Amino acid sequence: MRRIDTLTNGYKIIQDDKAFCFGIDAVLLASFVKLKPAESVIDLGTGNAIIPLLLCAKAEKLKSSHTKEKCRFTGIEIQDEAVKMAQESVALNSLENQITIISGDIKDVKNLPSLQPALQKTDVVVSNPPYMLSERVKENATDAKSIARHEVLCTLDDIIKSAACILKQNGRFYLIHRPYRLQEIFSSLEKYHLTPRRMQLVYPSIEASPEMVMLECRPRYKSDLKIEKPLIMYDSNHEYTKDFKTYCGLKD
Amino acid sequence: MRRIDTLTNGYKIIQDDKAFCFGIDAVLLASFVKLKPAESVIDLGTGNAIIPLLLCAKAEKLKSSHTKEKCRFTGIEIQDEAVKMAQESVALNSLENQITIISGDIKDVKNLPSLQPALQKTDVVVSNPPYMLSERVKENATDAKSIARHEVLCTLDDIIKSAACILKQNGRFYLIHRPYRLQEIFSSLEKYHLTPRRMQLVYPSIEASPEMVMLECRPRYKSDLKIEKPLIMYDSNHEYTKDFKTYCGLKD
Repeated sequence: MRRIDTLTNGYKIIQDDKAFCFGIDAVLLASFVKLKPAESVIDLGTGNAIIPLLLCAKAEKLKSSHTKEKCRFTGIEIQDEAVKMAQESVALNSLENQITIISGDIKDVKNLPSLQPALQKTDVVVSNPPYMLSERVKENATDAKSIARHEVLCTLDDIIKSAACILKQNGRFYLIHRPYRLQEIFSSLEKYHLTPRRMQLVYPSIEASPEMVMLECRPRYKSDLKIEKPLIMYDSNHEYTKDFKTYCGLKD
Repeated sequence: MRRIDTLTNGYKIIQDDKAFCFGIDAVLLASFVKLKPAESVIDLGTGNAIIPLLLCAKAEKLKSSHTKEKCRFTGIEIQDEAVKMAQESVALNSLENQITIISGDIKDVKNLPSLQPALQKTDVVVSNPPYMLSERVKENATDAKSIARHEVLCTLDDIIKSAACILKQNGRFYLIHRPYRLQEIFSSLEKYHLTPRRMQLVYPSIEASPEMVMLECRPRYKSDLKIEKPLIMYDSNHEYTKDFKTYCGLKD
């Protein structure tokens, strides 16, 4: 069922329970991303454009005395239905000047005509990709949800490779993923000369293993990794912690 | 100044403020290590033998109906003064049958005659190595403390290489290190075909970046990484948390 939801930043987003609904991970990643004025941002696997919408609102709050130029966002998505919904959401918020949604395959960024000017020139790449290995899909599923959650159409390695090919020299790549795949993530980052510079683990509670890891990486960068303080989602009463609500910009 | 301290497990240990005093990291690593009855354990860079002494006490508590054989521990240390102190501590506790201290270079484990029978046959390798890059030593220091703390005589890569060369097929390698070097750790582990299987971050407080990371790795193992719950050292009153005291076996 299609519906229109309103984000805490006031923007509206079109969702569909059956296929494309954003999760808390998109909100977490958008909170983890650091933006500067007038940056160009590409979201790999944008789904219904939740991340560009969240980041666009975040960019509006940036104070800049130097430039009136706004951040520009491009979302790439392979699923036609999601592309349509994302484009409608952008129009619904009159953000066509800032957000562009492109239909395309993440694996093929090099050859997408509309991305040619972005290659090696993008300030920020973000991605909230499918987390699960394709071999863990129950059957040979090709439905929208399976594609969004499992590596049916692209792998972790594909995404990191594409990020490295888009980013400019001092650019930043932001990724959210599952901690159990951390070694694979680090291995692919190294393969494509991206250095993890900042990392944060999101723990459901202080008594639990983390469920998400967020990384900020830079191309060919020599620097120590900074691991941020633990982000704890729920307190002992099973309510969001104050820290988590502040982090995600959720109301008290 | 040399002195004899008593550990919480009752064993005595010889220390020297000027050179070899164990820190909380040795206690953390010994707590993180999982031991099974009758295992062989090698500690790379054993210092004053704190880790064999802690693990030996831990092994005493293992219940085994299958075997009366005890765990055996070997500590390798390059600094002569530390070797002597470690051997004296072992004797002081009458543990000569269980703990052997060998004078030798970690980089050279393959060629140490007394280690020949251990190559590719050791159940468990542990290491609490120097954390800091040698280029960060203030001067060209060769004193005992600098050698214990900085990679003057061996690097992270040397230690991981040696661990891989000692461990048997189903063996486990336990390492404690600084989180800011995590990418390098993962990279070296991959180079020597060790898979990180379990990881825990130690945060000084819930508001701070972690100061230590502990890893359990297995040779050529296919498995997801499990990151444990966050271990928080101090509460808001700057006292050890209950969780931390329990973890380290410290008295309430």
